[in-house]
Amino acid sequence: MKTQHQASINAYQADGFIGQYQRLVKNVVIPYQYSVLCDEAPDTEKSHVIQNFINAGKALRRTGKAAESGPAEEDGAANTGNAKSDENGGFYGMVFQDSDAAKWIEAAAYSLSLFPDDKLEKTVDELINIIADAQDEDGYLNTYYTIKDKDKRFTNLQEGHELYCSGHMMEAACAYYEATGKEKLLQVMLKNMEHIYRHFIVEKHQGFPGHPEVELALLKLYRVSGNKHCLELAEYFINTRGADPHFYEKEKAKRDWSVWNNDPTDTDYSQASKPVREQKDATGHAVRAVYLYTAMADLASSTGDAELFAACRRLWESITRRRMYLTGGIGSTGLGEAFTVDYDLPGDTAYSETCASIGLLFFASRMLENEVDGEYGDICERAFYNTVLAGMQLDGKRFFYVNPLEIIPGISGISVTHKHDLPVRPKWYACACCPPNVARLISSYGKYAYGENEDTAFCHLFAAGKVRLENGMRFTCETKYPYNFEILYHIEKGGKLAVRIPGWSRTWQLSVNEKKLETSDVLLQKGYAYLNVSDGDTVRLVLDGTARFQYASLKVPALTGKTAICRGPLVYCFEGVDNQGDVLSLSLLKNGALRVSDFQEDLLGGTVTITADALRTETSGALSTELYSDEAPATSPCQAVAVPYYTWGNRGENQMRVWMDFV
Amino acid sequence: MKTQHQASINAYQADGFIGQYQRLVKNVVIPYQYSVLCDEAPDTEKSHVIQNFINAGKALRRTGKAAESGPAEEDGAANTGNAKSDENGGFYGMVFQDSDAAKWIEAAAYSLSLFPDDKLEKTVDELINIIADAQDEDGYLNTYYTIKDKDKRFTNLQEGHELYCSGHMMEAACAYYEATGKEKLLQVMLKNMEHIYRHFIVEKHQGFPGHPEVELALLKLYRVSGNKHCLELAEYFINTRGADPHFYEKEKAKRDWSVWNNDPTDTDYSQASKPVREQKDATGHAVRAVYLYTAMADLASSTGDAELFAACRRLWESITRRRMYLTGGIGSTGLGEAFTVDYDLPGDTAYSETCASIGLLFFASRMLENEVDGEYGDICERAFYNTVLAGMQLDGKRFFYVNPLEIIPGISGISVTHKHDLPVRPKWYACACCPPNVARLISSYGKYAYGENEDTAFCHLFAAGKVRLENGMRFTCETKYPYNFEILYHIEKGGKLAVRIPGWSRTWQLSVNEKKLETSDVLLQKGYAYLNVSDGDTVRLVLDGTARFQYASLKVPALTGKTAICRGPLVYCFEGVDNQGDVLSLSLLKNGALRVSDFQEDLLGGTVTITADALRTETSGALSTELYSDEAPATSPCQAVAVPYYTWGNRGENQMRVWMDFV
Repeated sequence: MKTQHQASINAYQADGFIGQYQRLVKNVVIPYQYSVLCDEAPDTEKSHVIQNFINAGKALRRTGKAAESGPAEEDGAANTGNAKSDENGGFYGMVFQDSDAAKWIEAAAYSLSLFPDDKLEKTVDELINIIADAQDEDGYLNTYYTIKDKDKRFTNLQEGHELYCSGHMMEAACAYYEATGKEKLLQVMLKNMEHIYRHFIVEKHQGFPGHPEVELALLKLYRVSGNKHCLELAEYFINTRGADPHFYEKEKAKRDWSVWNNDPTDTDYSQASKPVREQKDATGHAVRAVYLYTAMADLASSTGDAELFAACRRLWESITRRRMYLTGGIGSTGLGEAFTVDYDLPGDTAYSETCASIGLLFFASRMLENEVDGEYGDICERAFYNTVLAGMQLDGKRFFYVNPLEIIPGISGISVTHKHDLPVRPKWYACACCPPNVARLISSYGKYAYGENEDTAFCHLFAAGKVRLENGMRFTCETKYPYNFEILYHIEKGGKLAVRIPGWSRTWQLSVNEKKLETSDVLLQKGYAYLNVSDGDTVRLVLDGTARFQYASLKVPALTGKTAICRGPLVYCFEGVDNQGDVLSLSLLKNGALRVSDFQEDLLGGTVTITADALRTETSGALSTELYSDEAPATSPCQAVAVPYYTWGNRGENQMRVWMDFV
Repeated sequence: MKTQHQASINAYQADGFIGQYQRLVKNVVIPYQYSVLCDEAPDTEKSHVIQNFINAGKALRRTGKAAESGPAEEDGAANTGNAKSDENGGFYGMVFQDSDAAKWIEAAAYSLSLFPDDKLEKTVDELINIIADAQDEDGYLNTYYTIKDKDKRFTNLQEGHELYCSGHMMEAACAYYEATGKEKLLQVMLKNMEHIYRHFIVEKHQGFPGHPEVELALLKLYRVSGNKHCLELAEYFINTRGADPHFYEKEKAKRDWSVWNNDPTDTDYSQASKPVREQKDATGHAVRAVYLYTAMADLASSTGDAELFAACRRLWESITRRRMYLTGGIGSTGLGEAFTVDYDLPGDTAYSETCASIGLLFFASRMLENEVDGEYGDICERAFYNTVLAGMQLDGKRFFYVNPLEIIPGISGISVTHKHDLPVRPKWYACACCPPNVARLISSYGKYAYGENEDTAFCHLFAAGKVRLENGMRFTCETKYPYNFEILYHIEKGGKLAVRIPGWSRTWQLSVNEKKLETSDVLLQKGYAYLNVSDGDTVRLVLDGTARFQYASLKVPALTGKTAICRGPLVYCFEGVDNQGDVLSLSLLKNGALRVSDFQEDLLGGTVTITADALRTETSGALSTELYSDEAPATSPCQAVAVPYYTWGNRGENQMRVWMDFV
């Protein structure tokens, strides 16, 4: 079967559930996040990111080395309309603070492709001017090093995040160019790319970034610009990684400074213990891992590198068969925000970073460019509808960085082992990678939902809206997914249609123009139904919307004796607010019913609850005061109410549990 | 009801289960540990503790400040017969290394009180000579500071462990004096006590030790010596603690060195956030906590301080009602070896340090001197028969520092969050507090098992053997406890007998001379049966030996839906070796039988297994390869075999679980 590539960001105009989220991002998230970046949001963690760019520009003009030769302004704040000038002209924030602006621009670009908005475009243009002003004449661009110490450039690849920040800005540049046709940021980043190329390829300085990101960005930049240096650089970083596992030790020995004093021998942390083609287990920092694997899968599909794809496939299975939460969360521990070992998936101390699930979706999407297989889309939806959406409050104004599968007030967020598992979403973070990452993913959902090759439209994820592909096919998808499981494709301009049949759908039915198709009428391959469609056809797919008990492998110690509930792609959870304040004493019944409610417009932004037959264990007798007793506690039948995991924590601090006892 | 005090260490000559352990300590543990202290044990973590004392003595003689004026020997090794001379004359080990020798002497002293042994006594005498040689003429005694830097004495009470080491040596001195009547070490430690008294009381240097221990030791030394400075010093340290919560910050500001760079503001860690009488929750490092509470309870009973006792009682309830494992383990996290928060009791990442359970037993025993209540004995046995005994391999040659309630090879000891939870016992530890602590507790079991006041013998714990009390009462206890629940007391010299009726014993029967007593014949108060016994009487107590399912409070998230099995004081566990290598797939049946085996002489040093009706979940279908599935796994009835928790890990690396799924 021929492979395919992502739809362009301009291919999809969303409606339905996804469209609602994309409008929330446009109307609330992007303006709110911009106010944070400008340090204008009240009672919010300081960002300073735009001021950092302004200050870097000033620092360059003081030394006469800015790439842009505009007039040296005393106060760059005029350019942003918002950012306060820092009187000291200093840097504030994490070493990778620049990337927050990059991800915001990327989100804004995708949003502009969906919803033209002159005011937002002007804001972005002004920010791009500030960023261009902060680029050194040699192409270097990073406010931390430009403001603080230019001599340290590229001397600490392990911790320095310069290539990481460049990568995010390259992604922003590609997105803004694709959305608006404007080239300024693209040229800035091509110049930056050439600077990096000179350093690593021409001048042959060895090295690879501690935090992968630039690799996947370079491959995007290559596709947008056609500049082969991008591809060459991406290949260099991917192929160099792990070739010398002592590289970071040697690098550290040459310098007298550090960002966090990270251990250079902990090469698993940055996926650098072995050359990438030899790697077998997903290790270390989960976001780094999936960003790297995304680039590897992208390069494998671009170059037809079977060995590289085989490595990607091993790593994919390492994650999805042994190291992933039911919610598509990855990274079991806050110690290093990292993968641990196979089957070690505690729910209450989970890290399960929002960004890591976003990266997993990126990885899945690039795997789809190597082979069209429904399991990739299944994981995309698992990650998106659960961990990614849970990463943002329903009002778009608060964010989770960490997404546990159990919250118990009094322990979660308080016990030293549960400090990171917060019961309510904060407004912002000192390390603010997740909020803009959610915004850019939601706004670009179309390119993950749809793919194409010369004659086929691929419907990987179910997303209502209009789709116009470069191969000429045009159709409208109509669905109330993920709450209704009828998906209609109204074909405007036909061709071949490939629709994913989710692995969770025990039954399904395809019809064309109200005529049900028999199995023999459809080519079914690796989880996709392939059919020819003509102009004016209506294709109807009906999936199985039954609520399902979920079971975990018996190799996962934390999940024995437990069950969870899913419906469609949604994982459900039980919150105290729906269950008399106590979910710990609930056990679901093995042969009990799962009742699906009607759609409740006014509940949690519009949702469907599931009610399960359960037993509630009474707190009485000895166990009302003692820790342990041999007095069997009494139980009584009850109904337990579950809501989608992505909606949890929107009604104040209370208990939450995904995996329930099961009797 | 009148209170009581511990029996003297010479009061008890053990037989039965305890006697067997005491002989193991004498024959194997004490000689083995001595070879470790002398660095003579092959393939074992280096100790160097005796060499440290030798080197400290040399250092003093070089400056002419030794308290003992013996000839300056070139090589102190001749004195020990074992310890290799360190050519550099340096210090090796932890800052509290001295305490390993102290605890070994204490264990040897108790053992000598049970089993006279000229060779062992001579070895101890020689070691005491070496220790005396290492005492400065002003009374100071600590090899770390004497060898490394005398100017640092008492400048880092937070981390320095000088008072901790003094405390352990005071305990050793008391025990050796009581066992042998020999005064040398007692005089050394009284001189050391006077040095400390001068520093803190006479010269009014403020402060209190980061690791409590000296307080409880000073109270012992007070009882043995009658020297009131001991009591005054103990009161000073207890009352000063937490009075100025910024004390360690101020102390740190005055010095330019650190041992571990511990945070001086983390006053919870060392139970110093508030004055002790105001403390409500058991916090921080679990061993420190219970050593402090032991001293508080001892002081409260010595001085009749009701406010102090009330604080002890609150802390007791904080531990036993909310922060203790079923096994009597305390300290949920390896991060700081510490208590966390109420009801946070994960089994797989438990710390549950052996020493902490030993300290809990000390605390319980001192609480008994304030009020005779059966719950203290219940906790003593819970801690002793489970966590403390599990701390030592059945052959006496390997030790657990950490005692988890679940072990899964592949995760335990490997995952970054489970590194401390080892599946097999190591031979020794760089931080070797636990092994000699187990040895000294087992050898002194009699003083915890029996107590007395002027007219009553208290039988707190069930321990076969002969008992001769200072009040004149004499009797022999005959029992195969904890495997048989008939306990006979053959009274040689009568009086009042107070026998604890364990809280776990649902039924019980007392007889005197084969005549069953009715409830009305016995005074039953707070878990003790009080009766008058005459010379020649035989008292028979029959407890309930039924195996019992255990349930945990629903406030413990880790234990919902789980059950454990106990019989008598023994917690049971399921190991892979008895259950087809897989305990994760076993669920015990709610209405299933628990079958108790005959005593099996040849199994695990002699034990009784319990077989439970169970279901085994099959690994088949989707879950044989996938992490998650909606395919309900099949189950089949089976028998699951449990062994006592204290015997786990004696048959190689395999799965182990205390809390089982329950359906």
